[in-house]
Amino acid sequence: MNENDIDIGILKGIANQLRIHSIAATTAAGSGHPTSCCSAADLVSALFFGHMRYDPKDPHYYNNDRFILSKGHAAPLLYAAWAETGLFPVEDLLKLRQLGSDLEGHPTPRLPFADVASGSLGQGLSVGVGMALCARMDRLDYRTYVLLGDGECAEGSVWEAAALAGNHQLNSLIALVDINRLGQSQPTALGHDLHTYKKRFEAFGWRTEEIDGHDMEEILEVLSAVGLGSQPLVILAKTLKGAGVSFLQDLEGWHGRALSPEEAARATAELRPAAQSAIGRPIAPPNPLPAPKNDPPAGYPAPAYKLGDHVASREAFGAALVRIGEVDPRIVSLDGDTKNSTFSEKFCKRFPNRFIECFIAEQNMVGVSTGFSTRGKVPFASTFAAFFTRAFDQIRIAGVSGANLKLTGSHVGVSIGEDGPSQMGLEDLAMMRAVVGSVVLYPSDAVATERLTEQMALHKGLCYLRTSRPKTPVIYNNDEPFPIGGAKVLRQAPADRVTVVAAGVTLFEALKAADLLKSEGLGVTVIDAYSIKPLARDVIKHAAHKTGNLVLTVEDHYPEGGLGDAVAGELSHEGLKVHKLAVFELPHSGKPEELLAKYAIDARAIVAKVKAIAGASH
Amino acid sequence: MNENDIDIGILKGIANQLRIHSIAATTAAGSGHPTSCCSAADLVSALFFGHMRYDPKDPHYYNNDRFILSKGHAAPLLYAAWAETGLFPVEDLLKLRQLGSDLEGHPTPRLPFADVASGSLGQGLSVGVGMALCARMDRLDYRTYVLLGDGECAEGSVWEAAALAGNHQLNSLIALVDINRLGQSQPTALGHDLHTYKKRFEAFGWRTEEIDGHDMEEILEVLSAVGLGSQPLVILAKTLKGAGVSFLQDLEGWHGRALSPEEAARATAELRPAAQSAIGRPIAPPNPLPAPKNDPPAGYPAPAYKLGDHVASREAFGAALVRIGEVDPRIVSLDGDTKNSTFSEKFCKRFPNRFIECFIAEQNMVGVSTGFSTRGKVPFASTFAAFFTRAFDQIRIAGVSGANLKLTGSHVGVSIGEDGPSQMGLEDLAMMRAVVGSVVLYPSDAVATERLTEQMALHKGLCYLRTSRPKTPVIYNNDEPFPIGGAKVLRQAPADRVTVVAAGVTLFEALKAADLLKSEGLGVTVIDAYSIKPLARDVIKHAAHKTGNLVLTVEDHYPEGGLGDAVAGELSHEGLKVHKLAVFELPHSGKPEELLAKYAIDARAIVAKVKAIAGASH
Repeated sequence: MNENDIDIGILKGIANQLRIHSIAATTAAGSGHPTSCCSAADLVSALFFGHMRYDPKDPHYYNNDRFILSKGHAAPLLYAAWAETGLFPVEDLLKLRQLGSDLEGHPTPRLPFADVASGSLGQGLSVGVGMALCARMDRLDYRTYVLLGDGECAEGSVWEAAALAGNHQLNSLIALVDINRLGQSQPTALGHDLHTYKKRFEAFGWRTEEIDGHDMEEILEVLSAVGLGSQPLVILAKTLKGAGVSFLQDLEGWHGRALSPEEAARATAELRPAAQSAIGRPIAPPNPLPAPKNDPPAGYPAPAYKLGDHVASREAFGAALVRIGEVDPRIVSLDGDTKNSTFSEKFCKRFPNRFIECFIAEQNMVGVSTGFSTRGKVPFASTFAAFFTRAFDQIRIAGVSGANLKLTGSHVGVSIGEDGPSQMGLEDLAMMRAVVGSVVLYPSDAVATERLTEQMALHKGLCYLRTSRPKTPVIYNNDEPFPIGGAKVLRQAPADRVTVVAAGVTLFEALKAADLLKSEGLGVTVIDAYSIKPLARDVIKHAAHKTGNLVLTVEDHYPEGGLGDAVAGELSHEGLKVHKLAVFELPHSGKPEELLAKYAIDARAIVAKVKAIAGASH
Repeated sequence: MNENDIDIGILKGIANQLRIHSIAATTAAGSGHPTSCCSAADLVSALFFGHMRYDPKDPHYYNNDRFILSKGHAAPLLYAAWAETGLFPVEDLLKLRQLGSDLEGHPTPRLPFADVASGSLGQGLSVGVGMALCARMDRLDYRTYVLLGDGECAEGSVWEAAALAGNHQLNSLIALVDINRLGQSQPTALGHDLHTYKKRFEAFGWRTEEIDGHDMEEILEVLSAVGLGSQPLVILAKTLKGAGVSFLQDLEGWHGRALSPEEAARATAELRPAAQSAIGRPIAPPNPLPAPKNDPPAGYPAPAYKLGDHVASREAFGAALVRIGEVDPRIVSLDGDTKNSTFSEKFCKRFPNRFIECFIAEQNMVGVSTGFSTRGKVPFASTFAAFFTRAFDQIRIAGVSGANLKLTGSHVGVSIGEDGPSQMGLEDLAMMRAVVGSVVLYPSDAVATERLTEQMALHKGLCYLRTSRPKTPVIYNNDEPFPIGGAKVLRQAPADRVTVVAAGVTLFEALKAADLLKSEGLGVTVIDAYSIKPLARDVIKHAAHKTGNLVLTVEDHYPEGGLGDAVAGELSHEGLKVHKLAVFELPHSGKPEELLAKYAIDARAIVAKVKAIAGASH
């Protein structure tokens, strides 16, 4: 027997050990997906114990090969592999899915070896593309391995990622598709038709290898050719769901079912004779290349606007990105073929090597950005606010992952005018507020936009910046601070009757309304609520208390989930009476000012509403 | 010259007429996408005036060939074509993008010939798949034509649709890709590489034809072979953006730019000599096949539960779908490989011919459902609530379209337990509330679920039903009515101190809390707010007024955009003080009851919060 044969025997044994762990853990938990683990066990054994280069004691090490379990429901297999590297005791595997253990039902970055949460399928390849692009940017030689299920290849996001990877010739990216033929509720559309998978990946620019996913020799052979050529590689592995266990293997009806203790014992008895532990087995270390420079700068240069200048906040965002990008090497910009509208084009022109054109594929853009964020970059992804709805699941999972992701949505609300409702971001605040741990910012002028872009870069976590299409006057000095969670009281007098809370374009309408009302002897407090989440609760509360708790929110957004809901939802228990102006119906194409008027969020509508509120409060 | 040659000449002339209209309209509007119209003008001329079978006076006629402009920014071209059929005066084209005209910046169904809104790219093919599947179901022979841009083929949703169409061998579906090489901000990734498009579509099961999109003879030739074979057909048309105008054609920098009046005059001067009107030209009529049976039934049979039965609302949804499906031929069910979890499996088993398995491709599932809805069906699409975030853009556009779409999201909140946060729908209420015109329903027991499923079928518009994983007791009689916009006051006494508003699993926690509090002498009113949107404002308001305006909302959802925000956002101005219990942090895996406790939405948390609120109000 030569050394390679020994390896093959050992790796096959480890695969069975991973199967035993996966079955034991899910049986102990009483739920989970053991059969989805068994099909991929040989692939994972080969990668973790025969191929990948990494430091098992330091899963975050910057030049470790990356492994993304896109089919997150095979979590027990991933956990078993890391336990077998010696990172934590194998006994812990039996705490799977318990409240007291971070070995959750699907992986999350609460675990040091999970860069991203997975389990919402079809997202891992995009993250892998981001990591592989980042390796190139940082001149590192780690490789990125993404294990996909066959079922998730029905997700369009997989093909968005495949296209960009092919386009960039990412030969450090390796996808492994565990083609076990069986989905959750029935066989997949393609079953074991590997040839069609092959044709698809080839058409998207990939090198393909078809193998028997349970033949360790074949697995190692294709892995030995990783990195050759200029294309990303997909390994199409024909596997059997529940592989290795006679009464599970290739059978329907076993998806997402833990075995009973008796079944688990029978399965283990079948696997045990050919199983062996990996504990103590040497793992190839990564090459000690220079670490990437990902330290935040000491500070940013100041913006330079003049009060009264007319600048769209979307344009100020582009300028800010360049300004902070000059001193902050972590900044990367991505766009979905809207860079001339979002103004990320400015960054693209200045730093072409730190800009990724993602074309019209927003899901992948967000996933790629998340990939960059896991490698220490600060990715800013931009498109029309409306089109971020396309990537809500990726954004949601970025929230679960605690990803350091920055999103900028332009062209919000009816103020975009003629393009009509399909292009108007009118639900983006609701969407972004509902992402766990998110920060939601909505600047009104250029200075606020610039400063908030800085804040986004400095804040660790998912941030959303809402920019607008119309030009608006600069109302803040360049040195005005805009902390996350703040608000600006722009008009206030002791006799004020109503507190008007606005942001973005409606702030200017509120200011106009305040002037009109003042001339009629009715004072209103005006607040710029540029930080929608977290909301400046104290600022708003104190102002409102001085106006008899009467509040009017005005927003270029649907009435659900936006500024009005934020203020009412967070402060009604303090006694605030929050009236709302918002876009209460499906808007039409038209001129911006016509639409602000028609949908009653302009100065005139504010005047009328304030009078009604103040009048009713007598 | 033979008859075909005459046709070719006329159709070329009409194409130029459409170009002239598109340029004139966008120049009059001062914005728009004339060059994106010019590239597709020959294709549209051939389809509308040389090939499609339809009644131009009755665009909704059930056996008309369907045409979907997926590249919605070419709206002026679509409008010009319909004007040239004689449907409305060509002079109206100059009202493009004006508030007083329904010829909006992108098409919406305010226009009788736009079945769906388009303009958020990459969605049209899914809608077309739904229409083509419906034609087969209804034994009609209309064909479905979808005109795509090349840029939007980067959207994964296009490949989700392509896969399902290939899988179903939809040979009545024809995609035409206007490959004009230029995106919004730069050339597309593939440029004029038609061969790669061909390989991609072939790999997804399509017959392909590559043509010169400005050669009318070639266009007519490939159209003459439409419907042959058993595959959907894609016509890959090499075109030039701005085709026909020397100073626009194939040049960058012209996307989304209207011509100045002088430029428009020059362009028109070039086009005019070879242009001709289509007015009066005969159009092939559709075959007069029997109309599909799409009438709602006189009523539905009643459900049959016993009080105290334990039934998960997700399971009651499956039962309801079968029950109403028995008498309502309009009902169609679609799922994304979760049918054994959402229980749409029940419908699939009973009515396999009215069920579409969409596999793990939620964007396409929603688009296909929208397609069915445009043909008079009542499509119910179901998956985990969390995975509908994947399709938010399609749902958003269904809202813009006013589509009669029914969505059911199961597995909401922390009450799913061990699977962990990636699988927990915790932002679905925020998302669905923010869809314009939506209805959002959240039943607690089986009877409510059954009755609300009926209401969804009867209501015209987009409805969302939120179902839960745990089994909950039946608390309503089978004949209890559940109108949309209603709520149920389940506990109420004159001395009540706080109004607790809950829905779904938290309703049962609220009832338990009420019992506990009652035993301690603290009365609370309990409301089942099963209709989140529209909210039963009067019911909640009147109850709250009786409890000193003190309200506590309890929801298995993040605090943003859900039940609490709905109640506070709609009623704080009436003086209600709304306190919230919700999932305020990223949840963990665990047992459902452990998680309800840890995240403080269980009976114990309600008791504590009610005491705090009632105590503080002294």
